Amino acid sequence: MKVVNVGLTRAPYDVVIGNDLLDRCGEFLRAETGAQKCALVSDTNVYDLYGERVSRSLEKEGFDVLEVVIPAGETSKQMACVSEVCEAMVRGGLDRSSTLVALGGGVVGDLAGFVAAIYYRGIPFMQVPTTVVAQVDSSVGGKTGVNAQLGKNLIGSFHQPLVVVADPQALKTLPEREFNEGFAEVIKHAAIRAPDMLDALDDLEPLIVRNVEIKADIVAQDEYETLDLRALLNFGHTIGHGIEAAAGYGRYLHGEAISLGLVAATRLSVEKAGLPSQDAQKIFSALRRYNLPMALPPDIATADILAALQKDKKFAGRTIRFVLLRALGDAFVSDNVHESDILRAIEDLRSNGLH
Amino acid sequence: MKVVNVGLTRAPYDVVIGNDLLDRCGEFLRAETGAQKCALVSDTNVYDLYGERVSRSLEKEGFDVLEVVIPAGETSKQMACVSEVCEAMVRGGLDRSSTLVALGGGVVGDLAGFVAAIYYRGIPFMQVPTTVVAQVDSSVGGKTGVNAQLGKNLIGSFHQPLVVVADPQALKTLPEREFNEGFAEVIKHAAIRAPDMLDALDDLEPLIVRNVEIKADIVAQDEYETLDLRALLNFGHTIGHGIEAAAGYGRYLHGEAISLGLVAATRLSVEKAGLPSQDAQKIFSALRRYNLPMALPPDIATADILAALQKDKKFAGRTIRFVLLRALGDAFVSDNVHESDILRAIEDLRSNGLH
Repeated sequence: MKVVNVGLTRAPYDVVIGNDLLDRCGEFLRAETGAQKCALVSDTNVYDLYGERVSRSLEKEGFDVLEVVIPAGETSKQMACVSEVCEAMVRGGLDRSSTLVALGGGVVGDLAGFVAAIYYRGIPFMQVPTTVVAQVDSSVGGKTGVNAQLGKNLIGSFHQPLVVVADPQALKTLPEREFNEGFAEVIKHAAIRAPDMLDALDDLEPLIVRNVEIKADIVAQDEYETLDLRALLNFGHTIGHGIEAAAGYGRYLHGEAISLGLVAATRLSVEKAGLPSQDAQKIFSALRRYNLPMALPPDIATADILAALQKDKKFAGRTIRFVLLRALGDAFVSDNVHESDILRAIEDLRSNGLH
Repeated sequence: MKVVNVGLTRAPYDVVIGNDLLDRCGEFLRAETGAQKCALVSDTNVYDLYGERVSRSLEKEGFDVLEVVIPAGETSKQMACVSEVCEAMVRGGLDRSSTLVALGGGVVGDLAGFVAAIYYRGIPFMQVPTTVVAQVDSSVGGKTGVNAQLGKNLIGSFHQPLVVVADPQALKTLPEREFNEGFAEVIKHAAIRAPDMLDALDDLEPLIVRNVEIKADIVAQDEYETLDLRALLNFGHTIGHGIEAAAGYGRYLHGEAISLGLVAATRLSVEKAGLPSQDAQKIFSALRRYNLPMALPPDIATADILAALQKDKKFAGRTIRFVLLRALGDAFVSDNVHESDILRAIEDLRSNGLH
């Protein structure tokens, strides 16, 4: 078991990483709160696999557990579902002294975290991530929220968890495609902060620890993304989010769309920021290793991607701020990426070969 | 024109009070933000009266204004409406660099403030309250949110405005009943903090200033209601909210339900905290003067009121915390009010005569 602390000034918290910790969720939560009632929010897939184990662990510590299970998938990540979870909690008698556990992948964590942020104007909560992307990225850092019809994550709050419990064993039940997609965020972390990680992708527990350390370090320094630091975590995400939206939610998994975004942002880094092409090749090889998509099919229109991307929150006013790499591990926010560059990068994604 | 500062440590802001300030909203907002796009959120009633004036004033200062008009009334104060306003703003191209103006009464202020709290994880906003209750109370202090099906204000955020502009002239167009209901909160402020205000209810502008000063002072000391101080503002609200919900939203105006809650809490103060009965009579006289309801009709069931009240956020766990008065101006949070006391207080409300 390893513990990484997210060193926020106001409310630092631990990310606990280790095998079989799912059975100890109750202990970790009880150490942080005297709450009596607890909502366990999960989705249909994850609840079937791990819901009872986590529920039992919470009950063992005296929590009165209300289980709220939402349909699995990105389509749950919307305001109507937030509203339904809140109403279920009101009916279940949870109040401002209650707490919440988010058990699942990125969708559950983002949605349930947002519910915790706004229920009675905010109740404390725990993240129990069960996918690669949630364990290495989205469960840490306090960004919570849902999608608007025209753009991802446009509605939400900053709300940090009390504690995060990541059990690598939970990743064993992921279908291959869902397992692989998580590596897009791992490769992103490697690209912006830790190039040597590209040679150490196999051993899961230390890999999760390493990724959480990278994320925790950045979040502790720039909790609300007011500096240019936290923005570096958006490497690959501007074009990635545009593709994800233009393709229609459900076609690409989040990490698959981010893979395409990483390819585009890496090429732009070569063109505009002097990233050595052997560094770019290392990123491409890693993506390829996890069978992540690297070419854009013709039926996803460039105009749709651009339109979706313009709704994206990485744009402030009319200025396009875009994360580039000078070298592996050396990322920065550039003001020198224009709409025409992005257009060309999207078109370049259509050629299957990598130049 | 008078300015009251809400002296929060992190982000203090001004409440500007004066006649004809509706035409100067743009100036006050421009002094606080360089934003280009601005959502003007109002309801059908208020927009018809003042929407264009405020819009013009914003445009004069270079804001690109997106008008979003919601149906007037408490039924708009729900998540579905929050979602619709957010989607309209996404379609209108507003992003994290945009701002928002809430023009209207308590419903618009609470709802639009909540939209500002969660849009792109929070954008800055201005309150332009146009009812008595909004000017003397709800526009100041940063509580934003909407109702759940089973309880008022259960979903929301703390999100302080950049500036509040209150124009007493706007109150001239209020129907008498809507004007009167606002005095429930004025009488509450007088009861907990400023008994002499009960003898100076006529002159609107200084009255608003005085009420904002009381609210600002309390909020500045206890922004997140973590001490027992801000909780004092709930005097009359526990039973009032229960009655409002049990009666069905729309039957009582908010202030009318609070009037009934004030009568009950005042009587409980006489019984349990030694409030002199002549002090109680002063509160009753003031409520009577504004034609506010003081007796509960037989068709609103006590069981429904109790059920609604148990969903209310003034209850923490199983402990009932209830605001009482020892004397006019001397309020405190009591742990000595039991369910049986509340039951009796509700039953006592059914007798028209005041004892």
